[in-house]
Amino acid sequence: MHIAILGGTGDIGQGLALRLAADTAHEITVGSREAEKAETKAEEYTTELDSRGLDAAVGGAENAAAAADARVIVLAVPPYHVGDTVEAVADALEVGDVLVSPATGMKRDEEGFHYHKPGAGSVTRIAADAAPDGVAVVGAFHNLAAARLANLDAELGIDTLVIGDDEDAKQTVEDIAEGIEGLRALDAGGIANAPEIEGITPLLINVASNNDGLHDLGVRFE
Amino acid sequence: MHIAILGGTGDIGQGLALRLAADTAHEITVGSREAEKAETKAEEYTTELDSRGLDAAVGGAENAAAAADARVIVLAVPPYHVGDTVEAVADALEVGDVLVSPATGMKRDEEGFHYHKPGAGSVTRIAADAAPDGVAVVGAFHNLAAARLANLDAELGIDTLVIGDDEDAKQTVEDIAEGIEGLRALDAGGIANAPEIEGITPLLINVASNNDGLHDLGVRFE
Repeated sequence: MHIAILGGTGDIGQGLALRLAADTAHEITVGSREAEKAETKAEEYTTELDSRGLDAAVGGAENAAAAADARVIVLAVPPYHVGDTVEAVADALEVGDVLVSPATGMKRDEEGFHYHKPGAGSVTRIAADAAPDGVAVVGAFHNLAAARLANLDAELGIDTLVIGDDEDAKQTVEDIAEGIEGLRALDAGGIANAPEIEGITPLLINVASNNDGLHDLGVRFE
Repeated sequence: MHIAILGGTGDIGQGLALRLAADTAHEITVGSREAEKAETKAEEYTTELDSRGLDAAVGGAENAAAAADARVIVLAVPPYHVGDTVEAVADALEVGDVLVSPATGMKRDEEGFHYHKPGAGSVTRIAADAAPDGVAVVGAFHNLAAARLANLDAELGIDTLVIGDDEDAKQTVEDIAEGIEGLRALDAGGIANAPEIEGITPLLINVASNNDGLHDLGVRFE
């Protein structure tokens, strides 16, 4: 399957691009608002994969071009760019495409990081509200340990919770996620259940910063 | 240390009472609004512990009487009774006592369970607002697998996140929690960080109900 990772130059985007290219047979294209930046990152990722003897090229393109060829499009952009990004690529999407939302809103004060719940209810809901008719939105990849994800030498051993109102789209994303070695995908229901999941991301930062020896955390349900 | 578990006849209260009595040297008293109910449950727990060859008696008393003798008082009551319960036992508390809040607010709709954030900001904050001067409130034991906790044959292997604005009180509760075999206590900062933790409880129910083979979940940060 062809997967585009818009914002594939950020940390979660980088990790997903590398892991999916390394562990699965999917065709991966990273997208950016600037084609040149996406191409440069794609070359970097390809070199990294090549250095490990992996014959898995990552492509790079401007966001809309990346989305046009893909069946699944991951919105690995900051939360305040999720709506804009969906609108910017909307004309390139086809009925049956699936948008994946991993972003979460956070604010910081002297106590730590807190979930900044958007007026729409969740960042996943913002993506769903912006999506064209016939394009399903699935929330996934919210609570990943970013540095570990991007380090192909590191074992993951963590879960990702998947939410969506279209069961087929959700299954597609669960299958993609499970293709990553050491990542378990769990169904957490519909998009209405997004806030509690998005809220774990600031919590992971608080737990890491308050406990010696813990950093770059993910979560397991057991 | 003497620990009272108010609402110690409910599922989390039962699990905490049994585990603390079985695994630690703390003196445990379960509290209830009715002394007789507390005494009956305490006898049940003592019989259960005795049947395993554990010489660890659990006491039972009406809430205020249970709180009067204890240094640490766990508010294992439904969220809408947390404020009332603190007020009901306030006269029995002494400066230096520690209240522990494990409750969370939930509502249910056709999508599943959702965190019902109280107007005060969190259930832990409700407890803190109701506590007398000099009595610190610590949030802990929110996201435990209740049935597993109450089954002394089951291995826990899960974490509890601990929050509080009084570092000494928080350390006291972390030490108590770590006394339970298979439970790791992690510092998640101040009470302002409670909502994201309380929100994990409904999420655990959603994940368990949407995935075959998963039930009675807890969480690990790794």
